[in-house]
Amino acid sequence: MQLSDTDTVKLNEEDPSLPFVEAIDQTLLPAELRVIPLATTDEIIDAIKRLVVRGAPAIGVCAALGLYTVCKRHSLEGNEDLEAFITYMRREASLISEARPTAVNLSWAINRMVKKADDALTSDQASTISDLLSIMHDEAITIYKEDIEVCRSIGEHGLSLIEDGYGLLTHCNAGRLATVRYGTATAPMYLAHEKGYRINVYCDETRPLLQGARLTAYELSASGLDTTLLCDNMSASLMKTGAVNAVFVGCDRVAANGDAANKIGTSMVAAMAKRFGIPFYVCAPISTIDFSIKTGDEIVIEQRDGDEVTNMWYEKPMAPEGISVYNPAFDVTDHSDITAIITEKGVLRPPFDKAISELFAKQ
Amino acid sequence: MQLSDTDTVKLNEEDPSLPFVEAIDQTLLPAELRVIPLATTDEIIDAIKRLVVRGAPAIGVCAALGLYTVCKRHSLEGNEDLEAFITYMRREASLISEARPTAVNLSWAINRMVKKADDALTSDQASTISDLLSIMHDEAITIYKEDIEVCRSIGEHGLSLIEDGYGLLTHCNAGRLATVRYGTATAPMYLAHEKGYRINVYCDETRPLLQGARLTAYELSASGLDTTLLCDNMSASLMKTGAVNAVFVGCDRVAANGDAANKIGTSMVAAMAKRFGIPFYVCAPISTIDFSIKTGDEIVIEQRDGDEVTNMWYEKPMAPEGISVYNPAFDVTDHSDITAIITEKGVLRPPFDKAISELFAKQ
Repeated sequence: MQLSDTDTVKLNEEDPSLPFVEAIDQTLLPAELRVIPLATTDEIIDAIKRLVVRGAPAIGVCAALGLYTVCKRHSLEGNEDLEAFITYMRREASLISEARPTAVNLSWAINRMVKKADDALTSDQASTISDLLSIMHDEAITIYKEDIEVCRSIGEHGLSLIEDGYGLLTHCNAGRLATVRYGTATAPMYLAHEKGYRINVYCDETRPLLQGARLTAYELSASGLDTTLLCDNMSASLMKTGAVNAVFVGCDRVAANGDAANKIGTSMVAAMAKRFGIPFYVCAPISTIDFSIKTGDEIVIEQRDGDEVTNMWYEKPMAPEGISVYNPAFDVTDHSDITAIITEKGVLRPPFDKAISELFAKQ
Repeated sequence: MQLSDTDTVKLNEEDPSLPFVEAIDQTLLPAELRVIPLATTDEIIDAIKRLVVRGAPAIGVCAALGLYTVCKRHSLEGNEDLEAFITYMRREASLISEARPTAVNLSWAINRMVKKADDALTSDQASTISDLLSIMHDEAITIYKEDIEVCRSIGEHGLSLIEDGYGLLTHCNAGRLATVRYGTATAPMYLAHEKGYRINVYCDETRPLLQGARLTAYELSASGLDTTLLCDNMSASLMKTGAVNAVFVGCDRVAANGDAANKIGTSMVAAMAKRFGIPFYVCAPISTIDFSIKTGDEIVIEQRDGDEVTNMWYEKPMAPEGISVYNPAFDVTDHSDITAIITEKGVLRPPFDKAISELFAKQ
C-alpha cells in the first residue's frame, strides 16, 4: 500500500451492519504503513491517547466517525429503546471527548455530533434510533469531507505566501497525517510542489515523540518534496544560514487574541523566527479557534509520561533510572510572534483579536 | 566502581614503561561506567572523534596526556634518534590536534606540549629524548592538575551568583564528565549542593547525542542533586513557569567579543532566557577564550553525520531511509544574550570585548 492510497482516517462501511473507523497506525511509521480498525469506544479512546491517530483535525474526524460507529454497533446489538440509546450516545460522547484535554477539535467534533442529534430530536426530524443514526452518519461524513476542503483551502491561502525557491521550516506534524488529506501546515507545501515550485522543506524532528522525523519527513519525502530533517535545537542555527524563508506550523488551539497552543517547542521556533525576521505562519482551521478563551494563559497544557522522554525509542538506558522528567505536550506561542494565522476563510493579520472577532462575527 | 572513584581522564603509570591514558567511556553511560585504556595515537583520536572523551577541557587533557603517552611508548620501542623523535612527536601532535575542529582546547593543549618541548630544546634544557619525555610528562600532568583547579575556581565564582532555592537550567554536558573533575557549568551546582543549598537542576537532553540525558542527568543525580530532565524544545515552556532562576552552560570557544560557541541549541536557550529575563551564564576556562578571533562568525562549525539524528539510538527506523539531515555540532550564542562569562579568574561582565581584552592584558 502507498500513502496516497488511503486517508489518515475514514469510515469503512463495506458491511453496513458492522461499520468501523479505519486509521493509519502512526505509531508504526515510518517503518510500516498499516491501517487498523477502530470499532469500540475503548479502541477510539486508546487510539487517540496512544497517538495512533494524532493531529487536532484528524482527532476530530476520528471522534465523529467513531461516535457514529459505536452508536451504530450498539443499536445493532439489539438495544432498541430510544431514551436508553440517547443516554448511551451521550455517555460515549463524553468519554471520547475526554481522551485528550488540549485539542479543541475533539470536543468540537463530538459536540457538533451531539448537537445535531439533539436538534433533530427537538425539531421532530428524528423520532427513532434509525433516524438518529442516519443523521449522525451524515454529520460525521460531513465533518470528514469538510476537513478535506478546509485543508485544501488553507493550502491555497498559504500558497500565496510562498515563492519559488523558498526554504520552509515546520515543527511537529501538521501534515496530511494530522488531517484526512493535505494537512494544514503542509497544504501550502503540497500545493507549491504541485505547481512546480522548487522548495526545500526543513522538518524539526520534534521530541519526544518524533512526529517530525517519523511523520512529516516521511510524508513529504514520500510525496517527492525535497526534505531535510533537523533536531529541534538546530532551527536557530539553520535560520541563521538564511536557508529558511518562512515557517509554517499547525496548532491545537488558538485563543481569541491569537495566542496559539501547538506541539511543545513551537514557541521557541516562533521566537527565533521573529529574531531572524522570518515570517511565522500558524495554519488554523476555524474549528481550532476557541473564541471562548481570551488568551493562551487559559489553555490547559497536558503533561505526559516521562517514559516518553527516557525510554520510548531506545535500546539501552538513555537517562538514569527514575530521573524526574518535565514533559508538557504543548506550549503557547505568543500572538506577538505570529506573522499571520492562515484559516480556510483567509489569512488573518494582526491585531488578531480584531481579525478573529470579525471572522466570528461573519460566521 | 562509583563515579566518584575515578577522574574522567587521567594518566596510568603503574607500569612506567607502559603508560596509558585511562578514560571513562562516555558512549556507554548511563548504563555502564567503564574505564578504558588509550595507548596509541589512533586510540586517542578515535576516542575524541567518537566522543568516548568529550567536553572541551577533557579533550585537551586527554590530548596532552595522550601525546606524552604515545611519545613515551615510541621511545621504548627502541627509537633512539633525537631528530627522528622530534619529527615523530610533531607528526603525532598534528594528527591528534586535528581530531575535532571546533574545540580550541585540543589545539591549545597540544600546542602547549609542543612549545614546552621546543623551548626546552632551544634553551638547552633538554638534549636527550629522555629529557624531552620528562618535560612533556610534567607538562601533561600540569595541564591535568590545572584543569581540576580551574573548574574548582569557576565553581567558586559561579556560586556567588546562586541563591538557596534556585532552579538552574543547563544544556549538554559541561559537567565533571567534560573535565577531569567538577565540570565547568556544573561546578557552581556541585559547590552549592556541598554548601547545603536546596537547588533544582534542569537538564536539556541535548539531541542528537543526548549528553544532557546520558551524562549531565546521570552525574548530577548520582551526586545527590535534585535533577529533572527535559527535551531541548521544552526549555521556554519551563522558563515561563518561573522554575528557572539562572542558566549555566559551558562553551567550546569564546571569541574576543564574547560570542560563545557551544553545543547546538545553546543559542536558543540563551535567546529564550533573555526573553524571560533569566540570567544566562557561560562558564569558560580562559583556555577556551580565543582572542585571535574577533567574533563568533569566524568559528568553524563542525557538521556531523546525519546517522546521529536518524539511527543512533533507535530500535526501529525513526526517519525515512536516506533522508537529508542538517546536523551541526555547535552554534554560536551572541554575546548580547550572555549575562556574564565565568572564568577561573573571575566573572566577566559586558562589554565583553573590553573585559576579555583586559583579562588578556593582565595574563
